[in-house]
Amino acid sequence: MSFMDQAVAARRAAQELATLDRATKDRALHAMADALAAAEAELIAANEADVARAREAGTEESIVDRLKLTPARVAAMVQGLRDLAALPDPVGDVVRGWRLPNGVSVRQVRVPLGVLGIIYEARPNVTADAAGIALKSGNAALLRGSSSALESNRVTVRALRKGLEAAGVTPDAVHLVEGGREVTTEMMTARGYIDVLIPRGGAGLINAVVNGSTVPVIETGTGNCHVFVDAGADQSKALDILLNAKTQRPSVCNAAETLLVHRDIADEFLPRAFEALRGAGVTVHGGDDVRRFSDEVVPATPDEFDGEYLSLDLAAKVVDSIDEAIDHIRAHTTGHSETIVTESRDSIARFTAEIDAAAVLVNASSRFVDGGEFGFGAEIGISTQKLHSRGPMGLPEMTSTKYIIEGSGQTRA
Amino acid sequence: MSFMDQAVAARRAAQELATLDRATKDRALHAMADALAAAEAELIAANEADVARAREAGTEESIVDRLKLTPARVAAMVQGLRDLAALPDPVGDVVRGWRLPNGVSVRQVRVPLGVLGIIYEARPNVTADAAGIALKSGNAALLRGSSSALESNRVTVRALRKGLEAAGVTPDAVHLVEGGREVTTEMMTARGYIDVLIPRGGAGLINAVVNGSTVPVIETGTGNCHVFVDAGADQSKALDILLNAKTQRPSVCNAAETLLVHRDIADEFLPRAFEALRGAGVTVHGGDDVRRFSDEVVPATPDEFDGEYLSLDLAAKVVDSIDEAIDHIRAHTTGHSETIVTESRDSIARFTAEIDAAAVLVNASSRFVDGGEFGFGAEIGISTQKLHSRGPMGLPEMTSTKYIIEGSGQTRA
Repeated sequence: MSFMDQAVAARRAAQELATLDRATKDRALHAMADALAAAEAELIAANEADVARAREAGTEESIVDRLKLTPARVAAMVQGLRDLAALPDPVGDVVRGWRLPNGVSVRQVRVPLGVLGIIYEARPNVTADAAGIALKSGNAALLRGSSSALESNRVTVRALRKGLEAAGVTPDAVHLVEGGREVTTEMMTARGYIDVLIPRGGAGLINAVVNGSTVPVIETGTGNCHVFVDAGADQSKALDILLNAKTQRPSVCNAAETLLVHRDIADEFLPRAFEALRGAGVTVHGGDDVRRFSDEVVPATPDEFDGEYLSLDLAAKVVDSIDEAIDHIRAHTTGHSETIVTESRDSIARFTAEIDAAAVLVNASSRFVDGGEFGFGAEIGISTQKLHSRGPMGLPEMTSTKYIIEGSGQTRA
Repeated sequence: MSFMDQAVAARRAAQELATLDRATKDRALHAMADALAAAEAELIAANEADVARAREAGTEESIVDRLKLTPARVAAMVQGLRDLAALPDPVGDVVRGWRLPNGVSVRQVRVPLGVLGIIYEARPNVTADAAGIALKSGNAALLRGSSSALESNRVTVRALRKGLEAAGVTPDAVHLVEGGREVTTEMMTARGYIDVLIPRGGAGLINAVVNGSTVPVIETGTGNCHVFVDAGADQSKALDILLNAKTQRPSVCNAAETLLVHRDIADEFLPRAFEALRGAGVTVHGGDDVRRFSDEVVPATPDEFDGEYLSLDLAAKVVDSIDEAIDHIRAHTTGHSETIVTESRDSIARFTAEIDAAAVLVNASSRFVDGGEFGFGAEIGISTQKLHSRGPMGLPEMTSTKYIIEGSGQTRA
């Protein structure tokens, strides 16, 4: 099927999905889970072929690891679909409602977005996750996975579609979009066919989609997250939070990348911090302001304060004041998650008001900025844009609304 | 000032505006109103120059009329600013909040979007409206008006900036963006400087912005609004609603453009409708299915069912069933406002569930789909897209949110 054939089929499917009741969708999710579980051996064999191809092509082991499916990972994909069935259905929720002075009633009701386009990188589990989230929120999904995961994605989508059919739901709810780069361009310009594009992956992918799309995009993910240890910080809290935000899972977007320390406590805090970080295998990068505390601090280039390491590396800097910390974060933030550690009410008030990011944290690890931790139960990504949805996106974020207006013949004067 | 200088100044101003309290913003709105009122004579003189230039260039009188400012229109602009001061401030509203199991508190709080870019056509009153809405919602505004209204817009923005200064608020909250078409392109690609672009005007302008922007866009306005008179309609309600939706103000996006009538009542309803429409000066366009009811129906080309007349013209068609009506609307809708007139519960249920539009109306005129009628008090436009905001947009729609997460040292396990 060509991409445009898939897009037309998805658009038609979306009309059907929009009016499905929750029970039908939940039955379909369990049927998708059953079909995926039944395809486990086939999926693992297909994935072995993908992994072998990636290794032949000289792919880094860290990426091969993301690509790789084990029985445990397949079981997690299956369970993810079942967990979605247990979540509330956002479609049909009345967001608000009121009566006009003339008696006309107005209700704003959640409806699906329509057709979601998801463009993502190596991890084949995203295929099942995204398809399930789309279905539960009443949307059709056009899934554009990485070519490196093609065999795995084909088996997964075939199984999901089989499950949909078994539940009496149109299999055109889910499509795997195949083909060369020109197909990505077709997706990005498929206005009227795709209602929203969500890129999931590295900064390169996200920027390419943001800049090339005429379809509305929800930007996800890059996080140059700062931890500012204020003069008024409880230093043991600061150490715990810094270590957790940096090392609990360094490869993700809500991990800390830059440490800012107020000059008034730098002499005391930085030696402790550097020792603890060294113990956790973290390499600190910085300028003379921090290198004087440790020989092991690697000189940092200025652009290291702009990017994500996504590894056991951390940029560090001493600031003279909360003003300088705020200015630094404003200049370098990607708008994801920014943390202050302080006991000062004034500093908390200023930092939470003046820092503009999806999440601003006070005395807590930025690793909490996550759909699962928030209790959303499912997450399609973390939005770092301000339009539509900001922060972790669960099922309600995959909906739009419509106004249903009922009268008894009223006209406007 | 070059556009980029304005964009940088607006970005800086947005940081200041984001933390202004309501009292300061309301004081600034009144000061802007005062300054605009004081500039009335200058504004009307400038507008006369714009109008003379437009007439010389052979501009249509209907467009000249939109361009023209009278003392009454200036007074309405002034009052619009004062009315905004009386509306609640959306910034700081807690949308929702909860505690994580470990005691960390999470609040989702409304914050300004940042910098709004508004690209609009001839009407100079939009300049004051948009600046006021932006300020009240804590946003800076880059206003790109039509070159035909340049003199009027210059005087208006100068007055508004003077008002801001008088209230002690940075005048860089409001900028008039001048220059040739290349400046529009600069605006559309000013990612990181403009948070959202809102085009207000005809379909041509909106499509150009949607297709040319890398900045997120909120699509507004075009409305090919249908009125479907079902078999089970109360015909006198249907007549009232049809006439009101078509003729109460034909040039606006929520006016009716297409009439669909169920075959079972066409013989009775269409002759009555055509007579009433003729009496109201409306020209009906259609195929043989409706022309057999009246010699005065003008033959319609197929594409007349896709566009907006924005005049006292109406396309009409007989459909065999509600299914055909829904299919027709799905094929031709712009997703603005779609109306059914019926007393049938079944038809209401199907139409409201299956029609995907910003507003779906039952037994009421589509002219109610309007920020003022909804009680929003101010409207920046009517969104016809599904992302971020759909339908009439008031002050809360000009905001984003951020999560403020407060703990006492918690880390993720």
